[in-house]
Amino acid sequence: MTVENLSSNKSFGGWNKQYSHQSKSLNCAMRFAIYLPPQASNGQKVPVLYWLSGLTCSDENFMHKAGAQRIAAELGIAIVAPDTSPRGSDVADDEGYDLGQGAGFYVNATQAPWNKHFQMYDYIVHELPALVESMFPVTDKRSIAGHSMGGHGALVIALRNSAAYQSVSAFSPISNPINCPWGKKAFTAYLGRDTAAWSDYDASTLMRNASEKNGQSFVPALVSQGEADNFLSEQLKPEVLAAAAKNSGYPLVLESHEGYDHSYFFISSFIEQHLKFHAEHLSD
Amino acid sequence: MTVENLSSNKSFGGWNKQYSHQSKSLNCAMRFAIYLPPQASNGQKVPVLYWLSGLTCSDENFMHKAGAQRIAAELGIAIVAPDTSPRGSDVADDEGYDLGQGAGFYVNATQAPWNKHFQMYDYIVHELPALVESMFPVTDKRSIAGHSMGGHGALVIALRNSAAYQSVSAFSPISNPINCPWGKKAFTAYLGRDTAAWSDYDASTLMRNASEKNGQSFVPALVSQGEADNFLSEQLKPEVLAAAAKNSGYPLVLESHEGYDHSYFFISSFIEQHLKFHAEHLSD
Repeated sequence: MTVENLSSNKSFGGWNKQYSHQSKSLNCAMRFAIYLPPQASNGQKVPVLYWLSGLTCSDENFMHKAGAQRIAAELGIAIVAPDTSPRGSDVADDEGYDLGQGAGFYVNATQAPWNKHFQMYDYIVHELPALVESMFPVTDKRSIAGHSMGGHGALVIALRNSAAYQSVSAFSPISNPINCPWGKKAFTAYLGRDTAAWSDYDASTLMRNASEKNGQSFVPALVSQGEADNFLSEQLKPEVLAAAAKNSGYPLVLESHEGYDHSYFFISSFIEQHLKFHAEHLSD
Repeated sequence: MTVENLSSNKSFGGWNKQYSHQSKSLNCAMRFAIYLPPQASNGQKVPVLYWLSGLTCSDENFMHKAGAQRIAAELGIAIVAPDTSPRGSDVADDEGYDLGQGAGFYVNATQAPWNKHFQMYDYIVHELPALVESMFPVTDKRSIAGHSMGGHGALVIALRNSAAYQSVSAFSPISNPINCPWGKKAFTAYLGRDTAAWSDYDASTLMRNASEKNGQSFVPALVSQGEADNFLSEQLKPEVLAAAAKNSGYPLVLESHEGYDHSYFFISSFIEQHLKFHAEHLSD
């Protein structure tokens, strides 16, 4: 397995790095970024927060704009930010910004032509953590977070793999994709017209059906939503997630913030709160 | 005078805004960004830090990547980030990234075709502060900072207008442009082949000749430089600035940081120190 280091930038005493590797799940070269806090350079192993970005983003947006490194350095947490889809000239794509490259939606596609490369769920749940834990001085304690499409991905992945994550958080997640235009378009393309296959990737459905049976605990969840977000009512629907949590007794903390929108100006304003939330659970 | 508000994003309880206005100095439409901390929404006037960006940047890079809003909100300082040159299809340009649009070098050009629009020195020193102080709840207490080409601009402007600024700081400034490839190329184009006109825009020359005569005080100066900066020895030459300060007794604090490069990963790591330095002098 060849892994290529693309960049290294010192940041808050640690290192922000980008890598490219041949992904088996995605059947193409894949890029991810990692922030290693100073503690990871001192012979210490640190836990990892996985960050899933939103539509049109790459591995870079969060690392450049969220201001997370300062807090990760303070808390001793690594952050891994993968790209948002497979990429390349031989990877299927669509003219829309909300389907195809840059819009993987963190699902395993079952429909052609998407199923050849768009296996983002497997990549995030299995391949990427295995690679990260083999390459870097990190523990296998993991949390997961994301924004918008990535908030959807983080919630779905934590809800379906509760033993693997200490905590989950999301900014402005697509909370009920089976009932919004972005989700319907992507799920129809990736998963087909039979909507029975969709609910496994719907955070609200999963949270409504979540239980602590069979020794599995709920993964503590924090969701932050801006009230001036242009996508709030049509695409994001946090009220459906809140109702689902109420139904199942899920420990969801959903915070609403007056005046904030869908941008990184919102994420950067509250990323410290999210990282401290994860740090608390990663140190358990 | 028409000033158009292009964007407004809530950030750390304050507002990040972009404006476009017709600039008299530059003879074209010009864009700038401003961060107004929460204190400015509470009927209070706040001091202003002007931030000058480097080559290829616009008014957005610093506001998106430096993580400055968090600290500005805490300290109660507005930040104004202008674009780095005049722009537009009728504005002269060059194929190189280091001349023309995106590379104004904060000088008043005297040579055609540049002299029609490239009057960035006048814009930053006179037109922009007058506009900002007429539009926003700010005091006339100003500091100035910048990165690379903008570090050069900030130092030159503070050294030549010591009564107008409380403090100056720079990351990785082009400290001695009359003796480096970037500076020689730009100054030849903008100011002509007669190098006598160049020294008014050379921070090292100005600092070497600075004095506290005639009731003028030195403007306190902080410069941060990464030791792994690719441009360090050929383009930036902080050692020339340090020697100049020693010669004139100028209160320059020059800090060197092991492992850091020329990127925003460096700036974001030390922007808190710079903002606190300015806050101390702005509250005098």
